[in-house]
Amino acid sequence: MASAPHARDQEAALSQAPHGLSPPPPGARCLVLGAGGFIGTNLCLALDHARIPTTGFGRAARVPQGLAELDRLDWRHGTIEMLSDPERLVAGHTHLFDLIGAGLPNSSNDNPAQAVADGLPLKVRLLEACRREGVQRTVFTSSGGTVYGPAGNVPILETAPTNPICAYGIGKLTVEKYLALYRHLHGLDYRVLRIANAYGEHQRPERGQGLVAAVLDRLLTGMPIPVWGDGATVRDYLHIDDVVAAILAAAFSDADGARLYNVGSGIGRSVRAVIDDAARVTGLQPKLAITAARSADVAVNILDSGLLRRETGWTPVVAWEDGLARTAAWLLGRDRMPGT
Amino acid sequence: MASAPHARDQEAALSQAPHGLSPPPPGARCLVLGAGGFIGTNLCLALDHARIPTTGFGRAARVPQGLAELDRLDWRHGTIEMLSDPERLVAGHTHLFDLIGAGLPNSSNDNPAQAVADGLPLKVRLLEACRREGVQRTVFTSSGGTVYGPAGNVPILETAPTNPICAYGIGKLTVEKYLALYRHLHGLDYRVLRIANAYGEHQRPERGQGLVAAVLDRLLTGMPIPVWGDGATVRDYLHIDDVVAAILAAAFSDADGARLYNVGSGIGRSVRAVIDDAARVTGLQPKLAITAARSADVAVNILDSGLLRRETGWTPVVAWEDGLARTAAWLLGRDRMPGT
Repeated sequence: MASAPHARDQEAALSQAPHGLSPPPPGARCLVLGAGGFIGTNLCLALDHARIPTTGFGRAARVPQGLAELDRLDWRHGTIEMLSDPERLVAGHTHLFDLIGAGLPNSSNDNPAQAVADGLPLKVRLLEACRREGVQRTVFTSSGGTVYGPAGNVPILETAPTNPICAYGIGKLTVEKYLALYRHLHGLDYRVLRIANAYGEHQRPERGQGLVAAVLDRLLTGMPIPVWGDGATVRDYLHIDDVVAAILAAAFSDADGARLYNVGSGIGRSVRAVIDDAARVTGLQPKLAITAARSADVAVNILDSGLLRRETGWTPVVAWEDGLARTAAWLLGRDRMPGT
Repeated sequence: MASAPHARDQEAALSQAPHGLSPPPPGARCLVLGAGGFIGTNLCLALDHARIPTTGFGRAARVPQGLAELDRLDWRHGTIEMLSDPERLVAGHTHLFDLIGAGLPNSSNDNPAQAVADGLPLKVRLLEACRREGVQRTVFTSSGGTVYGPAGNVPILETAPTNPICAYGIGKLTVEKYLALYRHLHGLDYRVLRIANAYGEHQRPERGQGLVAAVLDRLLTGMPIPVWGDGATVRDYLHIDDVVAAILAAAFSDADGARLYNVGSGIGRSVRAVIDDAARVTGLQPKLAITAARSADVAVNILDSGLLRRETGWTPVVAWEDGLARTAAWLLGRDRMPGT
């Protein structure tokens, strides 16, 4: 097992990747909401690497350690619930990246009324702020794993029916509709990315967000791995570098096409297969803890990302086994250096 | 011009109509939310005629005059915003008809954040109440004119993309998704009716709800008729008797098929054509007042209702000219008898 890669290694990898990205427009200044989260941390690293001045907005009172070395990052701490004046936060930025989730897919069904009551009006107020402050483009990370619901055909196209089976997915879908409405009414430009199951460095297993992080963490610490149902649930896993590259491609591309894109690998992997592959890559033996199936889980989710490829030239470049190994290395390094 | 038809005439017409309706289940007890509105008034009349005990819930402090003669109607006054305990309202009913709108399509865009903040959490609390109180089926009147947005092909099928261009349509669509979620999670049965432009008796022109009512009222009172844009906007107009028949068909049908249906005539009529036809039926000369086009208006909206026809046997029976004449007669009668 390799030792933990330095954060800069990841950036270097990104910069060399043949993603075919459009350069950011001159004068770009980005605002990342949810900058301390998994996707947010990686996006801030990439924006800094591309020398784009960026404001990170997140819950942490101080710049999170993973972002502490960045030169071009301003940190603003807070939550959108606390924002009495979203215009002030948004002002002066050309691109808004809205990565703020509304809880987790599964827990959203525990209190669906609360989930929608809390999140949606704030999102709409944010769009109002973008319009008033002349933000050039808003990029919203939607959920390719939940907005479609049970899939008819896989890989799923963007034109497939959207029948979410969790309140989280309904919330994401409704924000998508509001983005389209604000474009229609006020010319506010946007891109929606329906992202598959992202995994990789900076995904924290203790936040319960991702299967890959959970499986690797439990393998590395010798704990039992919870498997809901028969472990046949199939998902589309995409390494965070490829996710961030898709976000940047959508943010800075001149393509004025669909504006709503799937972002996935197009490859389905069962829970069992993820566990087997993680075990093989780490050389460790898994212990399984079988529990009941969850109601918010669809059986199969695999995304067709051909539209984003055709319109922006984006393509995933991180091989599955490499991604697993890098994630395991990051988790090990994190354990040795707490707080990163 | 005929004099105003008695409310009972309308019911008699309904009972004789070849709608092929399923009989209500024994022990049915209905709750109509928004019972004092256009569709609600007509639905309460039809339920009473079918001898189904019904609770009408609406803003009026006392039973509205149009419903005052009904034997089987209990009246509860209030708004869902005021309901501290939706379970108490819902308890004891087998069927819930949720006709409560969230404002009007056009004004919803004036304050979209407010529109969603006000309406949606209340709707979800209502579904929770239905689940806890064991309501057998919830029927929700969605909006065939707004949930689809700009149409690709007409007549529009239920499977068409949904891209609303007003916050009202987004709100309706989101409630649809929550209904499907509650069925998935809790087995709560529902039907969604995406209704075209309903017109007919009890539609009040002063509420700004319908073109037909507005045109006829202004013709009858000699006032100028406002025409937004070039008057080429095409809509699908369906007489309220046919709308109510569709609601009852969906509520009481055993068909366990799509659960989401378009309800329209399948015929498109431009604003100009409606004005011409209304003028011909009433024998009056229209004065036009041309104003700017409205951003919430899609150019064409015509619904394909083949699914509801096939699954329930419902079919529209009121001819367009007859519907116009009956509506004109009702408006005239209302002017002679204030408060009806």
